Amino acid sequence: MSTESVAPITSPIQDYLQELHNRYADLREGDVATYIPELAKASPDWFGICLVTTGGHVYEVGDSREQFTIQSISKPFVYGLALEDNTRAEVLKRIGVEPTGDAFNAISLEAGTGRPRNPMINAGAIAAAGLIGGKSQRTRLKRMLDMFSLHAGEEVGIDQAVYRSESETGHRNRAIGHMLRNFGILTEPPDPVVDLYFKQCSISVNCRNLAIMAATLANRGTNPLTGRHAVRGEYVESMLSVMGSCGMYDYAGEWLYRVGMPAKSGVSGGVIAVLPGQLGIAVFSPPLDARGNSVRGLRVCDDLSRFFDLHLFNNPHASKAVVRLKYSAAQVNSSRVRTQEEAKVLREHGGGTQVYQLQGNLALSTTEVVVHEVMSGLNQVRALVFDFKHVLAVNESASRLFCQLLMKLHGQGKHVLFTNIGRVPQLRSYMKAKLKAQFALLFRSFEDSDTALEWCEDKLLAEILPREKIEDPLPQSAYELFAGLNGAEVQTVTALLERRKFRSGEIIVQFGSPARELFFVASGKTSVTVMLSGGTKKRLATFSPGMAFGEMALLDHAPRSAVVAADTEVECDLIKVEDFEQLGESHPHIKIKLLRNLAVGLSRKLRKANLEISVFDY
Amino acid sequence: MSTESVAPITSPIQDYLQELHNRYADLREGDVATYIPELAKASPDWFGICLVTTGGHVYEVGDSREQFTIQSISKPFVYGLALEDNTRAEVLKRIGVEPTGDAFNAISLEAGTGRPRNPMINAGAIAAAGLIGGKSQRTRLKRMLDMFSLHAGEEVGIDQAVYRSESETGHRNRAIGHMLRNFGILTEPPDPVVDLYFKQCSISVNCRNLAIMAATLANRGTNPLTGRHAVRGEYVESMLSVMGSCGMYDYAGEWLYRVGMPAKSGVSGGVIAVLPGQLGIAVFSPPLDARGNSVRGLRVCDDLSRFFDLHLFNNPHASKAVVRLKYSAAQVNSSRVRTQEEAKVLREHGGGTQVYQLQGNLALSTTEVVVHEVMSGLNQVRALVFDFKHVLAVNESASRLFCQLLMKLHGQGKHVLFTNIGRVPQLRSYMKAKLKAQFALLFRSFEDSDTALEWCEDKLLAEILPREKIEDPLPQSAYELFAGLNGAEVQTVTALLERRKFRSGEIIVQFGSPARELFFVASGKTSVTVMLSGGTKKRLATFSPGMAFGEMALLDHAPRSAVVAADTEVECDLIKVEDFEQLGESHPHIKIKLLRNLAVGLSRKLRKANLEISVFDY
Repeated sequence: MSTESVAPITSPIQDYLQELHNRYADLREGDVATYIPELAKASPDWFGICLVTTGGHVYEVGDSREQFTIQSISKPFVYGLALEDNTRAEVLKRIGVEPTGDAFNAISLEAGTGRPRNPMINAGAIAAAGLIGGKSQRTRLKRMLDMFSLHAGEEVGIDQAVYRSESETGHRNRAIGHMLRNFGILTEPPDPVVDLYFKQCSISVNCRNLAIMAATLANRGTNPLTGRHAVRGEYVESMLSVMGSCGMYDYAGEWLYRVGMPAKSGVSGGVIAVLPGQLGIAVFSPPLDARGNSVRGLRVCDDLSRFFDLHLFNNPHASKAVVRLKYSAAQVNSSRVRTQEEAKVLREHGGGTQVYQLQGNLALSTTEVVVHEVMSGLNQVRALVFDFKHVLAVNESASRLFCQLLMKLHGQGKHVLFTNIGRVPQLRSYMKAKLKAQFALLFRSFEDSDTALEWCEDKLLAEILPREKIEDPLPQSAYELFAGLNGAEVQTVTALLERRKFRSGEIIVQFGSPARELFFVASGKTSVTVMLSGGTKKRLATFSPGMAFGEMALLDHAPRSAVVAADTEVECDLIKVEDFEQLGESHPHIKIKLLRNLAVGLSRKLRKANLEISVFDY
Repeated sequence: MSTESVAPITSPIQDYLQELHNRYADLREGDVATYIPELAKASPDWFGICLVTTGGHVYEVGDSREQFTIQSISKPFVYGLALEDNTRAEVLKRIGVEPTGDAFNAISLEAGTGRPRNPMINAGAIAAAGLIGGKSQRTRLKRMLDMFSLHAGEEVGIDQAVYRSESETGHRNRAIGHMLRNFGILTEPPDPVVDLYFKQCSISVNCRNLAIMAATLANRGTNPLTGRHAVRGEYVESMLSVMGSCGMYDYAGEWLYRVGMPAKSGVSGGVIAVLPGQLGIAVFSPPLDARGNSVRGLRVCDDLSRFFDLHLFNNPHASKAVVRLKYSAAQVNSSRVRTQEEAKVLREHGGGTQVYQLQGNLALSTTEVVVHEVMSGLNQVRALVFDFKHVLAVNESASRLFCQLLMKLHGQGKHVLFTNIGRVPQLRSYMKAKLKAQFALLFRSFEDSDTALEWCEDKLLAEILPREKIEDPLPQSAYELFAGLNGAEVQTVTALLERRKFRSGEIIVQFGSPARELFFVASGKTSVTVMLSGGTKKRLATFSPGMAFGEMALLDHAPRSAVVAADTEVECDLIKVEDFEQLGESHPHIKIKLLRNLAVGLSRKLRKANLEISVFDY
């Protein structure tokens, strides 16, 4: 079990990328593109692979830092910018979304309208470049470069040599520009637009940049390494859709069948693939096949998809895991300490208060599981707590379902409580917008499940237990620890007590201080809290009149392990450790009764704690 | 908070389907297909919507039970059967997977080979029907009907009137059959194959059947209502791929863009859509648009996708939630009760034993998160426990990663333990196949995290604590509860003890029996267990020599709340309740010391329990 003198280990994912690199490095199929002289300078041996997860982990092998020009892989990104800068309807009016089934260099304008069939062919890409917002050519270029830099997570620039080469030989694209102007798809002179398109294709990137760009799309537009927002989530789905149907030229069907991820390839030998929610992949290897796709790129993506089972349509059923934990107030209670009588009521009637601790991403299919389960067991339920502590995200569809459920349950006279909704601000905004004037009344939000449970428990106890007039302060003879003591015995002990008053908020017991007294609450409420590592305060217990606190440190002579503070104005009776010890000499029978009561109390708390552990660690 | 006299509430999902039905019921666009007389009899008013989740919940509105013929929606299912009955390579040799961009009635054979471009056009579907296995025509038909019945979850049959009508007017399809025979795509006389195809198109279904069929595909081939297996999971991805690229004729690109789910429509007015892992949708409404797709079907799917955010490419990042809980043996321990000295060692050194409680579906992207996290914090770790209790499924890619990680960690001298792997038999098979002779040595599998933790703790304690020679049985003076008693006091108490022996497996304390004694373990091990509602036994605690048990019931006079049994041959010393009580009269100072020790022990257990709760309820 020694941990010394061992080499650091590599990730098996890294190992596999290396294996793929070894497998295909010697493959000699395909030809480097030569249609512009600059591209022909690429080495057929360059070969890089990079995989980036939406968690921001990067795995790369080979020539993953070799620079090359982005070429057609720029197309979906500029299409995304066009969508952001215009309405979706305007973009769809000018650029279609149907695959052509044609080869990569086809012009494919729609008969009559002249609308390019899709944004992945050159005509559609030029039309998209024409939709980039900005008053001057310079602004448009800057906005485009900024957009690419956000996706890549570092500043990208233009390879001037390739740009000049593109510009000098780009007659076909200039022709397309004029055709688009002719049909009114471009509304301004076409040359500056085509020039912008040349620049877009000449952006210099490396394989690692491309994988991060792909991972940004997988991460709904937020760069997983920088955390910065590159494109609005709602447009990512459109970018991926055109990649899915038109990204691989006339290889789209087979690609979807074999690899099963939206993808885009470029003539310089790059290819990216996106597995939404999970990861982005990029391969760089200049030799191309007859369809214009990188030969090694296709092989690597094919193997990666098969080996790692990445096909998009192979998603297993994930909805079942949405309810992380479900319990009732008969099993788990708030940290408000209850009397024996109250505890009995909660044990017997707490089943009507149900807590659903939810987790993961709440969308239709996961939220449906919650709604269905809630509705199936509604008869006995009086209050429902939805705890969002472990929820990662809530989409609009899920917010709407919760809102509808809330209104329906309210109509049935049931309480619905939400906790930890600071994690899902969209839910709150949605509720506020929908519930309007009723928002304050209906949307009960609590900091955590502890406070929500306490609210439900109080409600239940108020209904079931007869409200006695509570004496304030409580007579000492009513202290729980004095159970079984006769009048004389009570007098003997109370003679040792010292009454102290605390203002609301005052610290009664300080963390780390020596344990010198046992406390009895005579009036008011006190709470025990600890500081968690994150700096947040966690409430461990709240005591009411009649209860004792501070006994654990008293027993084992350890320093105080938590802070006790007064929640309200508080009166306490203190008994000093020495006096408590001394009782054993002077009145052993009293001491025996007190110790026994102490042990019974601890034993009850332990039973309760064990029950809660069995719920939480089910 | 009254729960009386309120009407049952409907699911908001049901409500929305009803809303959609109301929205489009009066839509008067499109025409009922007339190419065969029987289809022309359909009412343009028929309109049903059904949504089925992979959890098996069904939501349906309108004419969801109206019978109609399946027509082209049969195509992906027969393609799945063709894949199951042949190798994938053989099927791909005869039927392509590229979209044609052509209209629904195009023949679209590949130039030269005569291979149909894809299995969603009639030529491809007839070729697929020709690949159904079975010696006789009758067997083939039966196998096909059985396959559809498994998908639908109930027996389906053929609408004879439609079949006759198809057969009488199907000249074009007969021509296709002969063309396919001509090119050798069909290897037998074409007429019986075309006849089988007519029958396949004439299968009578309703909208609910279709939605269940779609949900079966969403559920990787297992019908979510019957739990029966309809098609192998590996082929579902292929069926969905051809639906994704070719399922909606020349509307495929726009469909993917707008709706974003693999789908298939039929000329009788049905359309199905599949959201893998989540749900299946079917709409039935006979009027068709110019492309042959149901007008109301498209509108409903479009609205459903937008409203519920169902677009396949809009998956949020789910990988983060894979680690349900992570803790160390310094925070949580096995139910083996430890001495104070041992507990101290575990508190100080237990951090080197890490438990990862995993959850959900383990695939590449989720397992990568685990591997990455494990590898980032490896230095201090001596043992790792992977708990699969909350894991839903493990695919091959994830199994492989765990196997590779295991071998790497083993190479570093670290222990790797797996628990609850009964849930994921594939993981065990994978390990067995890969590790071969090393399997028994390397793959340490434990029933649960409790027993795995105990193994790690024992290993750690054996390394750190000097092994004293343990006297057997332990002298009574060494009992924990006697701490602080002098020799005479120990003698006084031990005079009250009665020694009893128990055979291994013998019940020492029965559940529900009255609490009459407190037990001290002199030799051997005893365990406390409770029966969980599911009928499984859960261990609460294991005691070693020197420890006492049975004290809680003794304190509160409740009946025994759990069973205590001997794990080995056991010797116990018993003290009767009466004798314990009597001690208070005869030797109050001894009683005070015993009660105090009891309370200290309870207090320690409570502190430990509270720490564990804070870990589990984080």
